[in-house]
Amino acid sequence: MDFRFETEVRVRFAETDAQGVAHNSAYLVWFEIARIDYLARFRGGYPELRAEGVEALTIESHVRYLDPARFDDRLTIRCACGELRGARFRFDYAIERDGQAVADGWTRHACVDATTHRPLRVPAWLVQEIATAES
Amino acid sequence: MDFRFETEVRVRFAETDAQGVAHNSAYLVWFEIARIDYLARFRGGYPELRAEGVEALTIESHVRYLDPARFDDRLTIRCACGELRGARFRFDYAIERDGQAVADGWTRHACVDATTHRPLRVPAWLVQEIATAES
Amino acid sequence: MDFRFETEVRVRFAETDAQGVAHNSAYLVWFEIARIDYLARFRGGYPELRAEGVEALTIESHVRYLDPARFDDRLTIRCACGELRGARFRFDYAIERDGQAVADGWTRHACVDATTHRPLRVPAWLVQEIATAES
Amino acid sequence: MDFRFETEVRVRFAETDAQGVAHNSAYLVWFEIARIDYLARFRGGYPELRAEGVEALTIESHVRYLDPARFDDRLTIRCACGELRGARFRFDYAIERDGQAVADGWTRHACVDATTHRPLRVPAWLVQEIATAES
Repeated sequence: MDFRFETEVRVRFAETDAQGVAHNSAYLVWFEIARIDYLARFRGGYPELRAEGVEALTIESHVRYLDPARFDDRLTIRCACGELRGARFRFDYAIERDGQAVADGWTRHACVDATTHRPLRVPAWLVQEIATAES
Repeated sequence: MDFRFETEVRVRFAETDAQGVAHNSAYLVWFEIARIDYLARFRGGYPELRAEGVEALTIESHVRYLDPARFDDRLTIRCACGELRGARFRFDYAIERDGQAVADGWTRHACVDATTHRPLRVPAWLVQEIATAES
Repeated sequence: MDFRFETEVRVRFAETDAQGVAHNSAYLVWFEIARIDYLARFRGGYPELRAEGVEALTIESHVRYLDPARFDDRLTIRCACGELRGARFRFDYAIERDGQAVADGWTRHACVDATTHRPLRVPAWLVQEIATAES
Repeated sequence: MDFRFETEVRVRFAETDAQGVAHNSAYLVWFEIARIDYLARFRGGYPELRAEGVEALTIESHVRYLDPARFDDRLTIRCACGELRGARFRFDYAIERDGQAVADGWTRHACVDATTHRPLRVPAWLVQEIATAES
């Protein structure tokens, strides 16, 4: 996978569990941080989307946990956006620590009207900006 | 403190941290569960409050951690509501495991209009029901 | 899928997000609650596993979000365990509200030695009990 | 209060709740991030403490929520450490957004032996470094 964007998180103590490693649900929070940071480069990003009355629901998620993340680890999250079709899009992710794979995965999303929750096409400006960013 | 209401939670694995005990922030989540269960006995409880356009903000919280809660512990959370004055009210809590004190604390709240976030008196029906429950 | 086990969770206010629905990471916490409850029927369950020095790591997770779960929803989580081979096993899940599908998914796990983190066969007693439960 | 240390957090979407603001328990996670960052300046900081077999338990927490934090807010958390006596110490915190008060509070802690959970004096090197930092 060809990732042109990355962001960083530091594993919080609150994200660890009694196994001494980051809890499996924390990875979905990190994926979300990565895609929000990814979108933040375009216009007002995700807050702008919400201001326009568009909610992007998560409709599917997948994580492969390759090597446990631990407290205070500095993780790099690479991500890419693709498969924009109508209301839907997909993000792929790879999490690394010092160049070593920690986890990877993907999420799928659907834009809906924030009020009616009816499907809504991904706004044209966003499709355009993502196409430019990923090309 | 005289508690006339109690509810139960089981410590989730996801609530533990790398110290092998429940994370200090989990207690505020349990306090919230207790006060929502407390209010659920009156009309539609907290969901009803929200449906009436009233939000109850948390404006202060205090926790004393007396003995660590651990994974799978079955905890009893006792609580009482008081100090209802205008828009404000207070909850007191005591958390026990097999009759042993685990933690105690309190939270203070303010009712606001869900739209404007302006202070709003605690609805009369709720004041009445709490007065009855605590007397 | 044929589920012979189910457990219940109530959506916590702390699990909701600013979209007004349960956050996508909460589903992995609910899956975990279901498999811990599932295992609790056998010997000492998951706490017993840990007492024997066995950790069950989550190595993969998958969630399909079908209909948003909301605050105070009472959810039924059905689950089944299978594909026990050597150190590995898999859980499948279906989450429902009043008989309506809310989400489904699966997780894959590997048993490791709690100290060395080396792969460890799933204990024979557990393989036996799961085989009985699922047959 | 005279704060000589500060760190930053960005409010995560996962930290918001259905009131559209950061959940009250998130503030305790932010306080923890601040004190871990505070300690990180000294030797190996909190990870070093843990490596020496010392756990710092949280024994009390207090938060005043002054103005709701919202998704994507960039918060400054100022903190100071004091009241080091024997096994105990205290942190004070103030959270601001663009110079406006969002919350404040404090936590109290006790050092214990990681294995026996018996009280343990705060290591001399840490007492010394904090005294220097706060003077």
